[in-house]
Amino acid sequence: MWGLPPSDSVLHILSLVALAAQAMSAALAAGRRSMDWVGVCLLGCVTALGGGTIRDVVLGHYPLPWVENPSYLAITAIAAFATVLIARTVHRLTLAFLVLDAIGLVVFTMAGCDVAWQMNEPLAIVIVSGMITGCAGGVLRDVLCNDVPLLFRSELYASVSVVTGLFYATAFGLKLNDELWTVLTFVLGLTFRLLAIRYKWEMPKFVFNGEEK
Amino acid sequence: MWGLPPSDSVLHILSLVALAAQAMSAALAAGRRSMDWVGVCLLGCVTALGGGTIRDVVLGHYPLPWVENPSYLAITAIAAFATVLIARTVHRLTLAFLVLDAIGLVVFTMAGCDVAWQMNEPLAIVIVSGMITGCAGGVLRDVLCNDVPLLFRSELYASVSVVTGLFYATAFGLKLNDELWTVLTFVLGLTFRLLAIRYKWEMPKFVFNGEEK
Amino acid sequence: MWGLPPSDSVLHILSLVALAAQAMSAALAAGRRSMDWVGVCLLGCVTALGGGTIRDVVLGHYPLPWVENPSYLAITAIAAFATVLIARTVHRLTLAFLVLDAIGLVVFTMAGCDVAWQMNEPLAIVIVSGMITGCAGGVLRDVLCNDVPLLFRSELYASVSVVTGLFYATAFGLKLNDELWTVLTFVLGLTFRLLAIRYKWEMPKFVFNGEEK
Repeated sequence: MWGLPPSDSVLHILSLVALAAQAMSAALAAGRRSMDWVGVCLLGCVTALGGGTIRDVVLGHYPLPWVENPSYLAITAIAAFATVLIARTVHRLTLAFLVLDAIGLVVFTMAGCDVAWQMNEPLAIVIVSGMITGCAGGVLRDVLCNDVPLLFRSELYASVSVVTGLFYATAFGLKLNDELWTVLTFVLGLTFRLLAIRYKWEMPKFVFNGEEK
Repeated sequence: MWGLPPSDSVLHILSLVALAAQAMSAALAAGRRSMDWVGVCLLGCVTALGGGTIRDVVLGHYPLPWVENPSYLAITAIAAFATVLIARTVHRLTLAFLVLDAIGLVVFTMAGCDVAWQMNEPLAIVIVSGMITGCAGGVLRDVLCNDVPLLFRSELYASVSVVTGLFYATAFGLKLNDELWTVLTFVLGLTFRLLAIRYKWEMPKFVFNGEEK
Repeated sequence: MWGLPPSDSVLHILSLVALAAQAMSAALAAGRRSMDWVGVCLLGCVTALGGGTIRDVVLGHYPLPWVENPSYLAITAIAAFATVLIARTVHRLTLAFLVLDAIGLVVFTMAGCDVAWQMNEPLAIVIVSGMITGCAGGVLRDVLCNDVPLLFRSELYASVSVVTGLFYATAFGLKLNDELWTVLTFVLGLTFRLLAIRYKWEMPKFVFNGEEK
């Protein structure tokens, strides 16, 4: 009874940290393309909030969290803009950022699963909802930076999201203890992601050279 | 009375085939950009289901078919992944693919018209809904592959979709026999598309060299 | 009492002009990439109507104006196609176009604020809604033309939209005389934008050369 709020509020705080971390990563990407200050803030907001926005639009889940609670917009815009001022420092904190980004991936995935679950979507959609929430913001960032999305090319990013979602959704199905399972999923997803980065795990690539038909 | 279900189920089977065909074409495009296996499946799903998704989001037509029935997701993901294994064979089947893709264009267009018609949208929106369903998935594919969309540059693709939609919508207006009209539209659209490919029909291009203002 | 309709209908006529102007600018961009006639019309429609579409989808504000009233689609498609025929003339009218585009930015921003205000969204969302309506169509255009969006890179475009929205929203809050405030906002926004163009005002850029992590 008293359990859920603490677990929920930890997740909530983690997701605010993750919002800021994703906005800051996006700001560095904006800086590599010499965007102006407004562009930096816009790219930060689109990256950090885009995944959840696409999820809610696809599921018809209104109102969107950042529309109901514009402080999310403020957090991401401020985090992105702050990056302009402290870019050198931010860039040096490579490790911290990788960890924050990994936390973001896992927390966003779990939040996305929660939303679909509360709408009584089928299991596959619960997992897809988690994956969209965790990954789609980065796809938007890469499209706006005129790159082929990193998500489609390398790293176990989507895979971490799917595994995290599967593990988390199992708990729903089994009606296990909520807090315990939340913590376990978080630790599992985070560990998987960090190991994938550390040991450069990659999915096999599909290289095809047939000419365009 | 017994007529509609058969016609409907033929359309339904054709649209499953079309989903798979579009996912496989997208997988080849992914291979040309050396995406990894996850990227191949994601690009396949976005391409095959993206047109219908954009249509439903724009029309506010919830729930989305693939959210209600995740087996569509499975079909596209499996078709895309299978392409990784049999890419050489798939690539050799150029003709078969062109036909399957043309079937997809026509069937998706008709399905899109149906959706808008059932929502009592005006005629112009019925046709636009068909065009979005038939064409928008390929636009998403090209944007994610970092290309200017083929749809905007060449081939009678959008035009086939518009003509198919116009012809199909006429039947709605005239309250003609459903099955007959469905078959006629299908044959007309498919023939138009295949002739356009065979004889390389193209829309005139607009080439403009004035410098950016 | 008789005041609002005139003010409204002036805004309405201005927004039709703005739709056409944005479609024509997009058509020139399409011509620079040698798109075909269908591509020109599609890019015109996506650019002119895309901002309002994204706003309505994000806010869950259905039905979309162009779905309810397909004449907007016709206006943009015709304006885009007409540009193919009179491209040289259009291109020579640089100044007229800059003014029309500036009118579009300001009028779309105000229309976007109105929509969010009528939905009782918080002030920040009213302004964001105006900015999405005014600016997002151009982002879609640039993504489909395979460019990094101009909005993120230069010119006081988003900033004009934000200032216009802030000024306009103040009137809502203060319950000032509607027509007067509408006119004042329009003049302010337009002046700001034209001055920004004339004197090449720009936001500072964030240039960051740290390598990708």
